[in-house]
Amino acid sequence: MNVVDLITKKRDGGEHSAGELKFLMEGIVEGTVPDYQIASWAMAVYFRGMTPAESTALTLAMAASGETLDLRALAQSEKLIVDKHSSGGVGDKTTLTVGPIAAACGLPVGKMSGRGLSFSGGTIDKLEGIPGWSANLSTAQFRRQLREVGLVVAAQTAALAPADQLLYALRDVTGTVPSLPLIAGSIMSKKLAAGADAIVLDVKCGRGAFMELLPEARELAELMVSIGRGAGRRVTALVTAMEQPLGRAVGNILEVREAIDTLQGGGPADFQELTQEVATEMLLLGDPELHKEHEAAGEESGRSSARSRVLEAIGSGAAFDKFVQFVAAQGGDAAAVANPDLLDTAPAVLELKSKRGGIVSRLDARAVGLAAAALGGGRQRKGDAIDHRVGVVLASKVGEQVLAGDPLCTVHAADADAARLAADRILDAYSFRDLPQEAAAEPEERVSAERDTGPGGPERPIILDRITS
Amino acid sequence: MNVVDLITKKRDGGEHSAGELKFLMEGIVEGTVPDYQIASWAMAVYFRGMTPAESTALTLAMAASGETLDLRALAQSEKLIVDKHSSGGVGDKTTLTVGPIAAACGLPVGKMSGRGLSFSGGTIDKLEGIPGWSANLSTAQFRRQLREVGLVVAAQTAALAPADQLLYALRDVTGTVPSLPLIAGSIMSKKLAAGADAIVLDVKCGRGAFMELLPEARELAELMVSIGRGAGRRVTALVTAMEQPLGRAVGNILEVREAIDTLQGGGPADFQELTQEVATEMLLLGDPELHKEHEAAGEESGRSSARSRVLEAIGSGAAFDKFVQFVAAQGGDAAAVANPDLLDTAPAVLELKSKRGGIVSRLDARAVGLAAAALGGGRQRKGDAIDHRVGVVLASKVGEQVLAGDPLCTVHAADADAARLAADRILDAYSFRDLPQEAAAEPEERVSAERDTGPGGPERPIILDRITS
Repeated sequence: MNVVDLITKKRDGGEHSAGELKFLMEGIVEGTVPDYQIASWAMAVYFRGMTPAESTALTLAMAASGETLDLRALAQSEKLIVDKHSSGGVGDKTTLTVGPIAAACGLPVGKMSGRGLSFSGGTIDKLEGIPGWSANLSTAQFRRQLREVGLVVAAQTAALAPADQLLYALRDVTGTVPSLPLIAGSIMSKKLAAGADAIVLDVKCGRGAFMELLPEARELAELMVSIGRGAGRRVTALVTAMEQPLGRAVGNILEVREAIDTLQGGGPADFQELTQEVATEMLLLGDPELHKEHEAAGEESGRSSARSRVLEAIGSGAAFDKFVQFVAAQGGDAAAVANPDLLDTAPAVLELKSKRGGIVSRLDARAVGLAAAALGGGRQRKGDAIDHRVGVVLASKVGEQVLAGDPLCTVHAADADAARLAADRILDAYSFRDLPQEAAAEPEERVSAERDTGPGGPERPIILDRITS
Repeated sequence: MNVVDLITKKRDGGEHSAGELKFLMEGIVEGTVPDYQIASWAMAVYFRGMTPAESTALTLAMAASGETLDLRALAQSEKLIVDKHSSGGVGDKTTLTVGPIAAACGLPVGKMSGRGLSFSGGTIDKLEGIPGWSANLSTAQFRRQLREVGLVVAAQTAALAPADQLLYALRDVTGTVPSLPLIAGSIMSKKLAAGADAIVLDVKCGRGAFMELLPEARELAELMVSIGRGAGRRVTALVTAMEQPLGRAVGNILEVREAIDTLQGGGPADFQELTQEVATEMLLLGDPELHKEHEAAGEESGRSSARSRVLEAIGSGAAFDKFVQFVAAQGGDAAAVANPDLLDTAPAVLELKSKRGGIVSRLDARAVGLAAAALGGGRQRKGDAIDHRVGVVLASKVGEQVLAGDPLCTVHAADADAARLAADRILDAYSFRDLPQEAAAEPEERVSAERDTGPGGPERPIILDRITS
């Protein structure tokens, strides 16, 4: 096969065979197809796209380019193993809640996670905020924990889908990141290589996500579900809102605390809702009885059973207990999880007050994410060290009413200067609209504005779409 | 400047500033912009194109990326120095005739030429078929010959437009060759760096050219004229036919012989016509008095004066004398030029006869060019050695009538096996149509079919379009 012919074929709108894509992906890993040819090919893919069959073949070729796991065999489990993936957002600590809930409901969860980049956080970074917790597990440790605890979160190794890792690094420096088949292939190849039977995808959409617009996010979700189906996996994708940060905490240890609150039945309403929705979908895909009920008695019956089990896992404390057990199994300080006041805190805490009254009309998730990263909580480049203590806690979110002088948020920083710098950026992230005339006069209007913040309300639903295979 | 931002800008349809293009081209030469970024950028240019202003800025940036010449200063000439460039074809030995004609008419011609690749020949390769002739001249030699002989043809050095040379090598292996602004920039950057004041471009169009279709060839011609104008040069572009080979000889020494015939007033009609047209345009651009007449007395008056001088230069023998003088000045064997039977010949000569009667309806220039290259007369890769003796002489061309058993062409090869292999390819390049019924009966019809072969006839004009700045 001649690489220039393959580039030319895609450039001219042709459809690659599975063999051609395998040749290219193996060539990336073996170094026989040079970077510059992959780069021009990726740009041609950006312009010409791929058919669903091509996208599936590309994903399978990337998944097959290195080691692959078989989690069910590893866990010696009869049950399906369910994975969960978020396309990345601000304040997204959902893995920390849904993993323990699903595991507490008897579904084994074995997960490879990544680190944060730019405005978007990463699950491993958050968990590393717990003293002693480590994501570096041997295969033997991974298997034992999956069997004994039913929940394990490990750092993705370089051995998994190496073609994706090399292609992603190249796309990052050649202006070819925003291509739907390449994004879908990148996400799904890692998931397929990591060996889960069923996958719940959380495709974020909005200012704090890589997909800012709903049609694009929906298209990505549909494509990934189609790829999963083509690869013989059960997949459900939720498209969820990421205009403003998820929950109130942004920053690694701050998010761990919010996840603990939520596992204990508290936490912000939007994060509660997303946690319950994602966990419900995981149970529907992975639990054979719920899956049957869902298929037989119809959509709503299976879902409401699943959600009852999710609420029970939270209400009974089983989910939180599972989280403590999981943290301890990976070397983390269980006492600090049981009593989060023992977790590390930032030395400088600055409360920002609103300069005006009104209703928060917009809170730019990307700006908040970048401010948290600039505080030291995220990274500009892979490999940058991060400060797990820093971040922001949002007292006021969209739809909530404030009076001048009311607290908007609290900045947690390494020092006072850093806090002040971040404060300016975060204040800029807030937009306000005026209160209705009567509202200013009648205090009870304030309550109704607060009611407006419920995540499931008509104005700001958290679940924008659901696509299942 | 950030390279990824520039790639993204072009990918999204933006227009580069001159500064951005300068940054990219300097980055290629200095090695600060890696191949993979240039490759994805080139693919984005393929899809998005460039405005005329961008194309001009790109060309100027490439021209300025290395050494530049000032031919008029080199020649210590008051007259404009005219260059001539062909986009490449099969049997195209036009530089060998128009150079001496223009020089004989008093126009200094200082030219950088290239070597052949794939089906297309190169001027340097043809001239190197003359024993002793060399294209490797020092700047001092170049200047002296330009002043004393008025005609010099040198090999393009690596110092001239290095950004173009690097970009072209990368485009060749990344599927980004067929982009009009990149093609135009590549051609024109070398012409601008080589320092001529006026340029006649011969844009080939058809099966034996890189541009197969007239609209594309015309667009390329217009773009190059616009770039030349933007760079302050006088430029005329001719779009000329390259469906079948130009003239009858294809192969280096065979073409030198045909050029000598044509400089002596003979040669095939189509090549005579192209030679006269190109030389006429060179005089119109470069000769101040003809240029004035052309501008003042109108199109036809200037052109007919110029053409008279071209015909006179051929008829008087002045053009041929200039060719001999030029060959000798660059170390070539003048005796072999004066008596071409002294030139080297191929050991195996095979005459191919037509298996059927009819009128030649098509003669695929690309197939003939590839057959001549496969004989050893051209190269698959840069740097391949070539056999100057081999090639094909076409006895029958499009529109000409043959009877079964009439000669179609003669193959000149290194040995009989090579000749037979080429023969099959060349026979496949011919298509025939039946004679009209009456024609088979009436022999005089044959004459009228032959008359049909004139290059300026309505069916197969050699000049398809003329664009001037």
